[in-house]
Amino acid sequence: MEGLAKIEDLGKPRVVIVGGGFGGLELAKALRHAPVQVVLIDKQNYHTFQPLLYQVATAGLEADTVVSPFRQILDEQQNLYFRLAEVQRIDADRQVVETSIGLVRYDYLVVATGATTNYFGDAQMERNAIAMKSVEDAIELRNTVLTNFEKALQLGDEEQLNSLLDFVIVGGGPTGVEIAGALSELRKHVFPTDYRELDFRQMDIHLIQSGDILLKGMSAEASQASLKYLEDFGVQVHLNKRVKSYDGYTVTLNTGETLVTRTLIWAAGVAGAPLTGLAPECLRKGGRYAVDQYNRIQGYPNIFAIGDIAAMVSDAYPEGHPMLAQPALQQGRLLAHNLTRLLAQQPLEPFRYDDKGAMATIGRNHAVADIKLFGKEWRTQGFLAWLMWTFIHLVSLIGFRNRFVVLLNWTWSYFTFDKGRRYIIGRVRQPVPVEATTAKAIV
Amino acid sequence: MEGLAKIEDLGKPRVVIVGGGFGGLELAKALRHAPVQVVLIDKQNYHTFQPLLYQVATAGLEADTVVSPFRQILDEQQNLYFRLAEVQRIDADRQVVETSIGLVRYDYLVVATGATTNYFGDAQMERNAIAMKSVEDAIELRNTVLTNFEKALQLGDEEQLNSLLDFVIVGGGPTGVEIAGALSELRKHVFPTDYRELDFRQMDIHLIQSGDILLKGMSAEASQASLKYLEDFGVQVHLNKRVKSYDGYTVTLNTGETLVTRTLIWAAGVAGAPLTGLAPECLRKGGRYAVDQYNRIQGYPNIFAIGDIAAMVSDAYPEGHPMLAQPALQQGRLLAHNLTRLLAQQPLEPFRYDDKGAMATIGRNHAVADIKLFGKEWRTQGFLAWLMWTFIHLVSLIGFRNRFVVLLNWTWSYFTFDKGRRYIIGRVRQPVPVEATTAKAIV
Repeated sequence: MEGLAKIEDLGKPRVVIVGGGFGGLELAKALRHAPVQVVLIDKQNYHTFQPLLYQVATAGLEADTVVSPFRQILDEQQNLYFRLAEVQRIDADRQVVETSIGLVRYDYLVVATGATTNYFGDAQMERNAIAMKSVEDAIELRNTVLTNFEKALQLGDEEQLNSLLDFVIVGGGPTGVEIAGALSELRKHVFPTDYRELDFRQMDIHLIQSGDILLKGMSAEASQASLKYLEDFGVQVHLNKRVKSYDGYTVTLNTGETLVTRTLIWAAGVAGAPLTGLAPECLRKGGRYAVDQYNRIQGYPNIFAIGDIAAMVSDAYPEGHPMLAQPALQQGRLLAHNLTRLLAQQPLEPFRYDDKGAMATIGRNHAVADIKLFGKEWRTQGFLAWLMWTFIHLVSLIGFRNRFVVLLNWTWSYFTFDKGRRYIIGRVRQPVPVEATTAKAIV
Repeated sequence: MEGLAKIEDLGKPRVVIVGGGFGGLELAKALRHAPVQVVLIDKQNYHTFQPLLYQVATAGLEADTVVSPFRQILDEQQNLYFRLAEVQRIDADRQVVETSIGLVRYDYLVVATGATTNYFGDAQMERNAIAMKSVEDAIELRNTVLTNFEKALQLGDEEQLNSLLDFVIVGGGPTGVEIAGALSELRKHVFPTDYRELDFRQMDIHLIQSGDILLKGMSAEASQASLKYLEDFGVQVHLNKRVKSYDGYTVTLNTGETLVTRTLIWAAGVAGAPLTGLAPECLRKGGRYAVDQYNRIQGYPNIFAIGDIAAMVSDAYPEGHPMLAQPALQQGRLLAHNLTRLLAQQPLEPFRYDDKGAMATIGRNHAVADIKLFGKEWRTQGFLAWLMWTFIHLVSLIGFRNRFVVLLNWTWSYFTFDKGRRYIIGRVRQPVPVEATTAKAIV
């Protein structure tokens, strides 16, 4: 769309941030006292707390508690202008971004578009699998699981029944492990009373991991414990296997094995979500922008990238930093500081990643944590790790109200073993129609 | 679909209930110790607490707090079978209902399908207006309002801008009055900080009522107070006017006046949602089944109707009972009792409506209530009525958790003047595309 988008001009240097994930939002907030105009553009009107999406997908939390509307978070910030729009292209010559609401002029541009699900070019997989990157994905998975069980009640055929009850999760990183664990809890505590007529011994949860360990990147203790916990919970973990194809019904592995499921959850990879318009040589593999130690995109003095979309290569991180919340938050904070220094013509400060470690929860009382604090690493698995995971996620949520409601939900679920958000509202994924095989003809 | 749906046969008389609203759910629960098999069929997997839908639509409550999954409510009830299905037709000769999952045999059938929005045959209105009968409607209204404001930021043209900021609500019953009041609160406390760039003095809220009073059916004091409160809140109430047509942009009234809006909320009428298959003579005007004082549909000894879909005509109620929660709940409870008596070959007890009065809330600290207790009527308007309204709606919600979260939301909103659920997730209604008129061409 040509023509300028209508945004008041404050007569101050304008910082345009594309994307309000962890990095973009942190940057926007940190610029609240800076002598700049901040324009935050996102295609949603809310920030998503991605680490808890899997709990929305598994009926543990309402979608509302993991999202926060930008205008609500930022409505006190006088130098901030939010725009709901999709960005189509960067025009670095004219210093504008082309968006669905018109051109947006910038003095400094920050790309914080995050990552998107990477199907590695497999269009059939993209069509049939369910991803876990957005609230809409999570709601769709919840709706699909519940709809499938309702349909399963009508089926007589054994294989058809299994296709509805069984789950295949691809990817043994935190998302895959956490979903597998949460599904195994539902299978144990919730589904059997909800669906008395179904036999949940028939419900199989398969977790497929291409490498030989789960939670790659964490400590060996964490990997081993997560494997043990999942197996104790009855999850069938397939190490060193890959999915070759999935047609919405049959999953074929590279070993020749086949599994049957209507619900394949793809948690096997993410890639950067770059914009068009910049020189191709500033994009590295995985769709991330090559940035210097100030998060400046190679060759563009006033364009920056932070978070998942940025690959800041160093000896310690030859592939760039891990695609997690912490690097994004820290880069957002530093960039706010550096933009202020840039305007004051002071030298910039280089980014140094403060790695706080990593954690993943497998289920009730079971998590693994590698915590880095004061230059030391603590590794713990089990109940203590689970308490830490719970506490850290709770305080990281945005807004008192969300924290309170999540705490309430968790406390409730902990003591009742219940997960209450079991409604079907919104989209359902149904790649292959289910044929109901009715019991018998009417007399 | 031919062939029997797969539902275990308990060898007990089977009561099939179509619809899990107030009446159907109450009946199902009240039959928990009866020597029958209960089959509850609904096209959603959750019960909706309709009286609070308007708060979902106006960002005061998350959708999740006003719905409760049937399986969660009923999972302890051993004689109950829930089925997610659409009922297409009653076949009274074969004693089956035809559904999307196959035929369901019944010994006793209870139609509790409730009411649906009545557009009085105006197909254009149905296409362009937003209704307020389901959670999906409420979410759609919320999303549409928020999307319109985001779009309004880009508009220069005065009339186009007004079409996005202005609201027309048709119908001066409780729903219309409550939405008008809630929107006026958002206009005063929430929208101006969210959208600093818009001038909310331009946002008009029109309430159109065909009769000469609001809240027809309540006391004169209630009608007058609700009118006064709405006018104090800056709502433009049009009495004795009707909407002739709405094309998605221009509203034409019977007086010749026109209003411009992209958001017309239709709260002007409901009608019964009858099933096909029964003799046409048992349907009364308004799509309600004529039932005797035991809720039995005329001419069908083992088919009953309860709640909004039933018209039980008497001297006191020549049009049947009001289409509210109370008659439905009371009829559901009595029918459970009567079905047990029927099986024990005891005489049935006639229905007597215990009218507890009516109430409506207009906004913060302002409600009207006509309460009937111990044969006396108390009429109160203002703060006390508002407290009563708040308390009664809170305790009527299903489940401790929903009550708690709603209480938390209300307390929070009361002290902060905030309504926090301002995200756009799901459907948006956009009957006529908005042309963005951009500010100026780029230099």
